Amino acid sequence: MANIDSAFLALADPIRRAILARLAKGEATVLELAEPFSVTQPAISRHLKILEKGGLIARRAEGTKRHCRLAKPGLEAVDKWLATLRTGLEKSYQRLDSVLAEMEVKKGHK
Amino acid sequence: MANIDSAFLALADPIRRAILARLAKGEATVLELAEPFSVTQPAISRHLKILEKGGLIARRAEGTKRHCRLAKPGLEAVDKWLATLRTGLEKSYQRLDSVLAEMEVKKGHK
Repeated sequence: MANIDSAFLALADPIRRAILARLAKGEATVLELAEPFSVTQPAISRHLKILEKGGLIARRAEGTKRHCRLAKPGLEAVDKWLATLRTGLEKSYQRLDSVLAEMEVKKGHK
Repeated sequence: MANIDSAFLALADPIRRAILARLAKGEATVLELAEPFSVTQPAISRHLKILEKGGLIARRAEGTKRHCRLAKPGLEAVDKWLATLRTGLEKSYQRLDSVLAEMEVKKGHK
C-alpha cells in the first residue's frame, strides 16, 4: 500500500495533476511529459519523483529513454481512505433528513 | 467547487485525516476534536482552517462553542478529479490485456 500522505501530497499540485491526466491517455517519456510545461526538465523530474513516491506512477528505463505510466497503489490508497469520508457524509445527510422529517411531523401536530 | 489544490493538501496530513474520520461519525466541537491529540488548540484551529479552505469541513458558532461537520464540496472536487485517473488506469489495463492476448495468439501460431 502506498504512503497515503505522499499520495495526497502528490495530488495537491496542478502540474503533477496535469502529468497524471496526460498519463491517463497512455505511457509517455519524461521528455514528452515535460513538453507542455514551461518548466525545466529537472523540475519535471522532481515532480515525477513525488508522483512515484505517492504510488501514482511507475517508471521504467528503455535504453536512454525513461517511460512513465500510471500506477495503481496510490489511487487505491487514496480511494480506500476517501470511502470513510463518503460514508460519513451520507450518514450526516441521513441524520439531517430524519431531523427535518421529525420537524415536519411536529409541525403537522400543531 | 472547492479549490482542488487546497482539498488534496488538506488530506495530506494524518492529524487532519483523523479529524475528518472523527467528523465522519458526527458533528463535534473544536474542543472535542482537539482532545485525542497531544497538540495545542491553536494547532488544531490551524488544521481546521486548512480543512475548511479545502471545502472538507464547515464550521458554525453556537454561543461560545464552535461546531464542525463534514462538508461536501471538497470531497466532490477530489472525487471528480480522481475519476480521470480511474478511467486512465482501466484503459491502461485494457491495453495491457490486449497486448498479452495478442502475444498469446502469436505464440499459438508458432
